[in-house]
Amino acid sequence: MAQLLRVQNFNVSSDGIAAGEDQSFENPFGHGVDPAKLFAWAGATASWPMRTEPGGSRGLDDYLTRDYARNIGAEIMGRNKFGPQRGPWEDHEWCGWWGDEPPFRTPVFVMTHHERPSFTLSDTTFHFVSGDPATVLRQAKEAAQGKDVRLGGGVTTIREFLDADLVDTLHVAVSPVELGSGLRLWDSPDELLDRFHRDVVPSPSGVTHHLFWRK
Amino acid sequence: MAQLLRVQNFNVSSDGIAAGEDQSFENPFGHGVDPAKLFAWAGATASWPMRTEPGGSRGLDDYLTRDYARNIGAEIMGRNKFGPQRGPWEDHEWCGWWGDEPPFRTPVFVMTHHERPSFTLSDTTFHFVSGDPATVLRQAKEAAQGKDVRLGGGVTTIREFLDADLVDTLHVAVSPVELGSGLRLWDSPDELLDRFHRDVVPSPSGVTHHLFWRK
Repeated sequence: MAQLLRVQNFNVSSDGIAAGEDQSFENPFGHGVDPAKLFAWAGATASWPMRTEPGGSRGLDDYLTRDYARNIGAEIMGRNKFGPQRGPWEDHEWCGWWGDEPPFRTPVFVMTHHERPSFTLSDTTFHFVSGDPATVLRQAKEAAQGKDVRLGGGVTTIREFLDADLVDTLHVAVSPVELGSGLRLWDSPDELLDRFHRDVVPSPSGVTHHLFWRK
Repeated sequence: MAQLLRVQNFNVSSDGIAAGEDQSFENPFGHGVDPAKLFAWAGATASWPMRTEPGGSRGLDDYLTRDYARNIGAEIMGRNKFGPQRGPWEDHEWCGWWGDEPPFRTPVFVMTHHERPSFTLSDTTFHFVSGDPATVLRQAKEAAQGKDVRLGGGVTTIREFLDADLVDTLHVAVSPVELGSGLRLWDSPDELLDRFHRDVVPSPSGVTHHLFWRK
């Protein structure tokens, strides 16, 4: 079975925006973007990876969140998902947003032009790599040992990999929230239809899942 | 995490019928029921467990089929799913419908009042058990070693476990085919709403997925 590059549980607003400008420690998703609103559908499910209490729904949305780790052997993320800093690392104290137990539980390749040593938290090891998308994907596939690779975002990173035509499947949850300005995944999801099949699946929770797979 | 009893990828007609009368070797699903029609949505997906060729869709329906084996440690099935015979086993030559590589890859508990020794095919071991649903579920949970148990059908067995209130989640795909007569899962899916939450999810393939989870 070929190793796929999969985008999963990526959230945008009804107008295609995934993050605001001016990402900061206080506003991880940038100005004007409340992640609690965008992600509410996922947090309500039984299988949400960050869930700490029992309970949660087991309907449609849960099929999406419980697929998060299935057959994933590595993640690729942009530096802007890893943290709010820009430029050279001033120190190595920042270890990501996720505390001592990051939900990835695989090698994670953080794309940055600024060198930094790898480190491990629980089952997750972060590597910092500066190659182009195709090179980083080769590294991640090797680390994944036959399993698939998750492309974790942020939006700029996903656009880079789409532009390089490296994405095999893409799940985007479109939330019923309009943002107006910010970092945009697309002007319209129809932009991808030249290269991808798509199912559009409205969920009872109010989000609409767009499920793309390569033609 | 509690061990769940899960019904997955179970198919019925628009009028709630899962199998015809007079199951036989020639008609495994009984008179008037063409499984190719009922299961077409699943067979078209990339993750269909019986798929032998590459390809297949990776949209909504594939999320349902690829969840088939996730965290499953055992299956329970009725004798009518295992084979068309009734009464005492005349010999032990019949080993199920699935050839040398059954798709279960776990212990399988076949409910029958007629004794028969266990046997193994590839990664699947079939045990023949005569207890009531609660007893068989205890055996299957023990064999599943902390994982969930799949309730594989047929329809009579699923009804028995629903009547005993032992089912935790239930995925039923309702196909756009009317059968008129046969073995019925329900008169209406609304019958289960006193005990279950439900998402109703129409798929682009034409089936409607009913996803139930315990209140």
